[in-house]
Amino acid sequence: MVILGIDPGTTRIGFGVIRSERSKLTSIAYGLFSQVSPAGVIDEINKISEKYRPDMAAVEKLFFFKNQKTIISVGEMRGVIMAALAINSIPVKEFTPLQVKQAVSSYGRAGKDQVQKMVRLILSIKDPIQSDDAADGLAIAICCANNILPTNY
Amino acid sequence: MVILGIDPGTTRIGFGVIRSERSKLTSIAYGLFSQVSPAGVIDEINKISEKYRPDMAAVEKLFFFKNQKTIISVGEMRGVIMAALAINSIPVKEFTPLQVKQAVSSYGRAGKDQVQKMVRLILSIKDPIQSDDAADGLAIAICCANNILPTNY
Repeated sequence: MVILGIDPGTTRIGFGVIRSERSKLTSIAYGLFSQVSPAGVIDEINKISEKYRPDMAAVEKLFFFKNQKTIISVGEMRGVIMAALAINSIPVKEFTPLQVKQAVSSYGRAGKDQVQKMVRLILSIKDPIQSDDAADGLAIAICCANNILPTNY
Repeated sequence: MVILGIDPGTTRIGFGVIRSERSKLTSIAYGLFSQVSPAGVIDEINKISEKYRPDMAAVEKLFFFKNQKTIISVGEMRGVIMAALAINSIPVKEFTPLQVKQAVSSYGRAGKDQVQKMVRLILSIKDPIQSDDAADGLAIAICCANNILPTNY
């Protein structure tokens, strides 16, 4: 099963594509969307859908931000992502930031560095991941794999 | 020029399609989307796009709500709408609730009843408009017509 994880943001959208096979999770691709406009995001997701054929997508749920204007924009971007996934008939699951952190560490307060470290360990990625948002995309995909297959690793 | 106005909400999405010709604005269609899921909204906008061929769309800008959870959902729905308009290559303009109210009344504190009354007057609609959200969709389209053609009526 191929799972696409997406970390929605207004200036950067990270993504990770993983394969979940028997008890093993491996990384297929990860990175940042090069376009963040509505039309651009649709284009990026269409390309990922065509190239990697994900069976399922996972998107991080929005909780709250200090800046109300920010919430609105991230919310809109999440809507664009949901629409693009719907166009490609990819079912979506949503996870809270806490669920995502718990999926890659034993507790929910892991920092960016620890998330990256655990993501690389779980997926056997040798090189550092350049973008924290891409690492988050992979972590979200791992969280999804964990939740649909509880004894995954 | 045909203008589509959309009033985004999480449980009801109102829309209005108007024609702006020389100094006259007329109503072409208005109502509520029958589906409010991401895939459903895309479907509704695809249908409106095919049927009425709008040259432009206008969507109400989100300001703030008391309930933070609500903001997030309305924001997401706005994102879905933006994505669906982008798919149909319809340029979008955004207006604040104040701008919309000012477009249909001389001041910015018009109530739902007054908005409906003025929308019907401006567009020469004889029958009452069943849904306030549909009337708002028309008001948003009128606001857009006003702003792109300042001496429109």
